[in-house]
Amino acid sequence: MDHFISTADFREEELDALIDHAGRMKRKIESPSLAGKNLILLFFNPSLRTRTSFEFAMQQLGGNTVTLNTGGDTWKLEDREGVVMDGNAAEHITDAARVLGRYADAIGIRVFAGGESWEIDRKDPVLGAFVREAGVPIINMESSLYHPNQALGDIMTVKEHFGRDVRGLPITITWANHPNPLPMAVADSILLASCRFGLDVRLVRPEGYDLDEGVMDRARKLVKESKGSIRVTDNIKEGFTGSRVIYAKSWGSIRFYGDKAKEKEHRKKLGDWIVDEEKMALTDNGKFMHCLPVRRNVVVTDSVLDGKSSIVYDEAENRLHAQKAVLCRLLEG
Amino acid sequence: MDHFISTADFREEELDALIDHAGRMKRKIESPSLAGKNLILLFFNPSLRTRTSFEFAMQQLGGNTVTLNTGGDTWKLEDREGVVMDGNAAEHITDAARVLGRYADAIGIRVFAGGESWEIDRKDPVLGAFVREAGVPIINMESSLYHPNQALGDIMTVKEHFGRDVRGLPITITWANHPNPLPMAVADSILLASCRFGLDVRLVRPEGYDLDEGVMDRARKLVKESKGSIRVTDNIKEGFTGSRVIYAKSWGSIRFYGDKAKEKEHRKKLGDWIVDEEKMALTDNGKFMHCLPVRRNVVVTDSVLDGKSSIVYDEAENRLHAQKAVLCRLLEG
Amino acid sequence: MDHFISTADFREEELDALIDHAGRMKRKIESPSLAGKNLILLFFNPSLRTRTSFEFAMQQLGGNTVTLNTGGDTWKLEDREGVVMDGNAAEHITDAARVLGRYADAIGIRVFAGGESWEIDRKDPVLGAFVREAGVPIINMESSLYHPNQALGDIMTVKEHFGRDVRGLPITITWANHPNPLPMAVADSILLASCRFGLDVRLVRPEGYDLDEGVMDRARKLVKESKGSIRVTDNIKEGFTGSRVIYAKSWGSIRFYGDKAKEKEHRKKLGDWIVDEEKMALTDNGKFMHCLPVRRNVVVTDSVLDGKSSIVYDEAENRLHAQKAVLCRLLEG
Repeated sequence: MDHFISTADFREEELDALIDHAGRMKRKIESPSLAGKNLILLFFNPSLRTRTSFEFAMQQLGGNTVTLNTGGDTWKLEDREGVVMDGNAAEHITDAARVLGRYADAIGIRVFAGGESWEIDRKDPVLGAFVREAGVPIINMESSLYHPNQALGDIMTVKEHFGRDVRGLPITITWANHPNPLPMAVADSILLASCRFGLDVRLVRPEGYDLDEGVMDRARKLVKESKGSIRVTDNIKEGFTGSRVIYAKSWGSIRFYGDKAKEKEHRKKLGDWIVDEEKMALTDNGKFMHCLPVRRNVVVTDSVLDGKSSIVYDEAENRLHAQKAVLCRLLEG
Repeated sequence: MDHFISTADFREEELDALIDHAGRMKRKIESPSLAGKNLILLFFNPSLRTRTSFEFAMQQLGGNTVTLNTGGDTWKLEDREGVVMDGNAAEHITDAARVLGRYADAIGIRVFAGGESWEIDRKDPVLGAFVREAGVPIINMESSLYHPNQALGDIMTVKEHFGRDVRGLPITITWANHPNPLPMAVADSILLASCRFGLDVRLVRPEGYDLDEGVMDRARKLVKESKGSIRVTDNIKEGFTGSRVIYAKSWGSIRFYGDKAKEKEHRKKLGDWIVDEEKMALTDNGKFMHCLPVRRNVVVTDSVLDGKSSIVYDEAENRLHAQKAVLCRLLEG
Repeated sequence: MDHFISTADFREEELDALIDHAGRMKRKIESPSLAGKNLILLFFNPSLRTRTSFEFAMQQLGGNTVTLNTGGDTWKLEDREGVVMDGNAAEHITDAARVLGRYADAIGIRVFAGGESWEIDRKDPVLGAFVREAGVPIINMESSLYHPNQALGDIMTVKEHFGRDVRGLPITITWANHPNPLPMAVADSILLASCRFGLDVRLVRPEGYDLDEGVMDRARKLVKESKGSIRVTDNIKEGFTGSRVIYAKSWGSIRFYGDKAKEKEHRKKLGDWIVDEEKMALTDNGKFMHCLPVRRNVVVTDSVLDGKSSIVYDEAENRLHAQKAVLCRLLEG
């Protein structure tokens, strides 16, 4: 059985097959059916694009969907093993996974990092419990480490704008400022996907904002296979110059993990980490990408986001098509 | 492209075409299909009838629906333009509108008045942003100013009970007491729809409860076209005597807008603004209408609401049929 | 018109017809259609299994569903009759029931006991209002007194494991410890269903945890009809020895109803009311059942729940199939 946890678990041809299938559905030259298939979407955190695009994806494919919000619609879930459950959580994740696996043919899960201990969060315990216990394919709708549906839609968008062969295409993944320490999953995922497809990756972030060492190791391994390249720098000018794609994202620091006050203090010096016209001018007619939601005039200026280099809405739309391809892959046949 | 923001944007024949279509669907002599069409329902405020009737409407028409609750299911949305988004809102309404417009063929939006400044609220900024940015038809599911789906179902209900030609039919739109200052949209909308169809409108409200001047101007203009009439009074007896329809609704005062304490004080004298048997006896066998939800024994007595003059449940049911007609108009062909 | 409030309202043959139908749908040898039928699921309390299984049930049957959460998606509802509604509730349950009855062909309702007065709660006022006012079949998705869909799935599960004729089969319904005083509905319902089908019922609970006297009367009456038996004891050893099914459930005490502090104090002595390997060893190769959610290592140990005597996941799955049979019974033809 397949799961869809990270794009890094799939070969380039497999990802290209998904992207090609997504493109055919987008152009309405293929309309597959998942009639009779049952998908559960389980949200531990809020969502706009992911929720909307997955619900429409499954409806358009003719399948059945149930969406659950933990803590609101349903019970609080315990994720520690072996504990005496005399606290707030009414149900153990193990039991929820086993039961939902009885009702569904696949389960999508969004579960962000808890934000207190990176050593715990980086193991993605809730997602792991579902993979282990549910007995059906699990679709990662964003965990601590990965957001593979975002990355798949992102690469699809890059290929729409630059052609199917993106080997060697310069892409800049740049940290941006933000009032809060955000999850790293999107940054991890566009990094891994870019490395998988052999792009010329520049990872630009200020000191203290390195990504998880395990993710970096995976990225370097992928680069070797794909004959791409990866460079890490804190020099914005170097990172942006000549680039074709600026992929902006804010994320929290592992160094200050769980200490918001200290990170806030550190960030006061980082207000110039915003993507503006001046920085975009350094690029080679670069396209601007962001997963959304985005803080306008903090992460990126209105003029860049609303300008003609911005392809963020194509990127959001492609989530729908890419996810339909993922659902078909996991649920067909 | 059409939107459905207010019934006042449509000609009488257009509204009658919608009502006639709704009637044919209600009698099950017509069953149109919106298979393959995608509707988003975006709620900034709670709902019972609107949510239920729209979700069923689209399912019965064979289309796809995604329902979103802002602040719960999804992110907080910023609606001011050009701001530096370093506060609580994670996404700008502009971006939400553009993205949702990529997923949907139409978007329904419920967004009540904020309740602090009428000068801001009367511009319906969120609804306006969606009309401007989404690129697909927008359906107003109740804004500061209008609740057109309510008004359409209301007129359909009036016509069911009094015949298709309602020109000159006396209707009383009466303010009623309530613990809280409620939105004006329903009162505005039944007023505008009644004026459009040439009814003999009596608007009865205590001093301090005038409706928005822009709405009143629109109403007077419609009356001229339709050869109806409109009279505003604070005399309950005058307003109820000989009327055929009593349409009760509480709303907040523009004079005390944003000052709940002062309005509460002012309302202490207004406890007799309740629709009871005695007042109904003044009418010419009048029917009682209310959009619901209604505060029993504050807005209307149990005996009137549960009595045989009450047509509030027909009125609620017709929401479903009227909305199906609206969806067909915006999404067919 | 039929409602589905308690299994005790139905004859054994009727319940067997539902279970047989559920079994045929589970084995996919029958696929009935409820196309064009409209179901509302109204939740006053959270849910995982009930929500998911009802939503999938109706989708798999081809019908339409709207799910509502009161207090979140929709207004607060008043359930006292004749009151002046100047408090927090914006809508009366009577009006909600009448309106929802106009939109739906059946309404499922989950409304737990309020927890302050058992004299009020045991009358299930909200459920009663819907039965009285909605004009369509009402499905009890768990009230103060009953959880009939759970009980139907439970008996289906017992029959899967022990054969269609379960007359005389020893079943132990045992109270278990828990941090909170939980609803009694599940205990009531498995008791009534077991009595209806003529099992040899042992109800094991500590002093102070008797079930509602009305429910006990109903159970004794059913036992007479079915030639089953019922024994109530506080002796765990006696209750477990030789039993074939251990059905564990915690519930709150009627004696301490509304006084959580006092009950908490009383429960301190009851920590050994947990189902563990030692107690299971007393049974005759007994199966372990629980409705879920379950507090691991409080109600039951990990080793029992994860062991091969546990049939809790079959039990959860059968909810889906049993509910499809209930929906067909109420909505077909």
